[in-house]
Amino acid sequence: MLSLAAANDLIWEKFQHLPVGYEVVDVLDCLDRIVAQDIVSGVDVPGFSRSMCDGYAVLAGDTQVASEDHPAVLRCLGEVPPGGDAALPIKEGQCLYVSTGSMLPAGADAVVMVEQTRPTDEDFVLVYKGVTSGERVIQRGDDIKTGQLVIARGESLSPRHIGALVAAGIYQVNVFARPRFAIISTGDELVDNGQEPVAGQIRDSNSYALQAFITKAGGEVVRRVLVKDNRELYEQELAKAIDSADMVLISGGCSVGTRDYTAAAINGLPGEGVFIQGVNIRPGRPLIVGECMGKPVFGLPGHPIAPVLLFKIVVEKLWHRLIDYQYKNDKVTAVVNFDMRPALYTHLLVQLEKRDDFICAQPASPGNPAQTSAISRADGYIWIKDPEAGLSRGQIAEVMVF
Amino acid sequence: MLSLAAANDLIWEKFQHLPVGYEVVDVLDCLDRIVAQDIVSGVDVPGFSRSMCDGYAVLAGDTQVASEDHPAVLRCLGEVPPGGDAALPIKEGQCLYVSTGSMLPAGADAVVMVEQTRPTDEDFVLVYKGVTSGERVIQRGDDIKTGQLVIARGESLSPRHIGALVAAGIYQVNVFARPRFAIISTGDELVDNGQEPVAGQIRDSNSYALQAFITKAGGEVVRRVLVKDNRELYEQELAKAIDSADMVLISGGCSVGTRDYTAAAINGLPGEGVFIQGVNIRPGRPLIVGECMGKPVFGLPGHPIAPVLLFKIVVEKLWHRLIDYQYKNDKVTAVVNFDMRPALYTHLLVQLEKRDDFICAQPASPGNPAQTSAISRADGYIWIKDPEAGLSRGQIAEVMVF
Repeated sequence: MLSLAAANDLIWEKFQHLPVGYEVVDVLDCLDRIVAQDIVSGVDVPGFSRSMCDGYAVLAGDTQVASEDHPAVLRCLGEVPPGGDAALPIKEGQCLYVSTGSMLPAGADAVVMVEQTRPTDEDFVLVYKGVTSGERVIQRGDDIKTGQLVIARGESLSPRHIGALVAAGIYQVNVFARPRFAIISTGDELVDNGQEPVAGQIRDSNSYALQAFITKAGGEVVRRVLVKDNRELYEQELAKAIDSADMVLISGGCSVGTRDYTAAAINGLPGEGVFIQGVNIRPGRPLIVGECMGKPVFGLPGHPIAPVLLFKIVVEKLWHRLIDYQYKNDKVTAVVNFDMRPALYTHLLVQLEKRDDFICAQPASPGNPAQTSAISRADGYIWIKDPEAGLSRGQIAEVMVF
Repeated sequence: MLSLAAANDLIWEKFQHLPVGYEVVDVLDCLDRIVAQDIVSGVDVPGFSRSMCDGYAVLAGDTQVASEDHPAVLRCLGEVPPGGDAALPIKEGQCLYVSTGSMLPAGADAVVMVEQTRPTDEDFVLVYKGVTSGERVIQRGDDIKTGQLVIARGESLSPRHIGALVAAGIYQVNVFARPRFAIISTGDELVDNGQEPVAGQIRDSNSYALQAFITKAGGEVVRRVLVKDNRELYEQELAKAIDSADMVLISGGCSVGTRDYTAAAINGLPGEGVFIQGVNIRPGRPLIVGECMGKPVFGLPGHPIAPVLLFKIVVEKLWHRLIDYQYKNDKVTAVVNFDMRPALYTHLLVQLEKRDDFICAQPASPGNPAQTSAISRADGYIWIKDPEAGLSRGQIAEVMVF
């Protein structure tokens, strides 16, 4: 049976040329979108040297020997208004009053804080402290230089990026279009919103959970349907799903029972059909992956934890690879609080708990695979890629956080 | 000068009764919203005991001595269809065929996997392996019990919660209404989108950065204006802001210069006026907090890093306290990669870097306070609450992540 890595490589091999769209969005609407091309500043920020305080723009050399007892005496030529042009250049022995943020006049290379000066009656200023060249000055381009990378392709836009973009005059951002997903939930026992489950029936929660994870990942669900275990209906819905979306997720129906139509339905449509059936991981072992009309179709087992984890470790992974996604703070280093030797390659849901100066991980589920509440409790998961070694209490492990 | 903790306590004292609104949203639209009341399940999930596999529902006692050589022989009464009612109860010596997820018939307490059985011609089934009571059965309420807390008041809704909510039949969630913010950016030197800065002018990036942080925190910006350093205009805009929003943020104009109208404008409107002017932290020392018409008004210094940090450590803190926000994974434990003895109580922007089995923190800014690019690079910040001890290379520190 295929390993997870081999499955992901095979999926990548088939779909690495899947088309991805682009979209230009306003900087105020771009949070959590993924940047589609490197964004480089076309300007220096600030565009001119600025004062960091209220005071006097000077030639540092003029103040070199100034002290409380022997102040330097400078002629003040006037004031640079904040937001105004410092039209007047200064020369040796001269200064100009500047406010915080004012443009530095030509000739000046430092600012003396107003607290260290005293104006005299006749347009002269006494300076009681020497400054060095560059002191209290924000140089042109100190924040961002022309040509500097502001945010790279594949990075997710976060509030912290917005100030720098706008400071560089970038109010619109080219981002990847949201990938469109269709979700098909299968099973005679499932009921949707508006229906009250009767004996033997349960609510379809998988398609809702998948939609939430898709949305969080920046995708869009364009179609979500619940299909009974009827092969004809199933095939019709799969065709519609492929028609409307970039990727199709099917929840349930991928075991080998009489009502498991997923593989047959994928193979019944034009395209390569199923090329993965079963992966050596738990949960998620019965995973089916196929290609119909050039698009990926994922058959996810119906137990609640499997579809969510397979979305993270297989489906989202493909999307991230297509857009060169730059992972950032998606992992937490935690101390394992239990022993575990699973029989298989396992993704284990864990809860994190903050201790004095470390983070502690414990299993979110007491073992039962059919637990929406375990997902709800889980902060993330640990990938046990060496089941024989397993996990031992006290060891450090990497937790992929949701 | 007030400490940060004292300032936050004073703000809480004034505004702990600030009204917060509620809103009912669809479970598919509730991501990142904050739950307004404990959500408790009204049902057992699953609502009946279910089979975990395809096989036969049995009385475990009937199989106790079954083995490869001496199979137990059970009479098969038929099948429980998935999604159907297990109307037929079974008794000693009987069994019913069940699919994965099928309802367990009354009387049965375990399921034998189909792989460990063989049907005979005459409605009898041979069972080659003994099972214990409860084996391969998901008991009624195993996932969620009636009365069990699904998600608590103050928790932020994440994709991981959605499956459990829907499984419990909860398709609508009561969340806190988005707090409405007004942002006023002040300064003659500032230009907005659509204007090209000329000599001495810079782009107003603070109000955009604040809007992004507000949005991420679940708030809504209902008004964002740029005001020149004109006292009358300033006061008019403040009055409009207070009228339209729950909280007002003013960027710039809170030093003690001639153009710093924030304190005067707040004091000019009905209400208690300014009650905090200056906090013993860097950046953000000139922070002003006041009350106008019962609403909080925050005057934030104009240097780019200060308003963003003050939003996180003061403004968002008040909002979080009002809604009993449950912090979750907002801190990372990192190893400090530098020495620092700041002169003041400092919030230091840091970048995080993943090493072999720990995370390393280094300063995001080379010291210049006016850096939108430093915010852009920062993964979070460290609160240096003991400046004398400072930070030493190799020590463990808590990083609040953005």
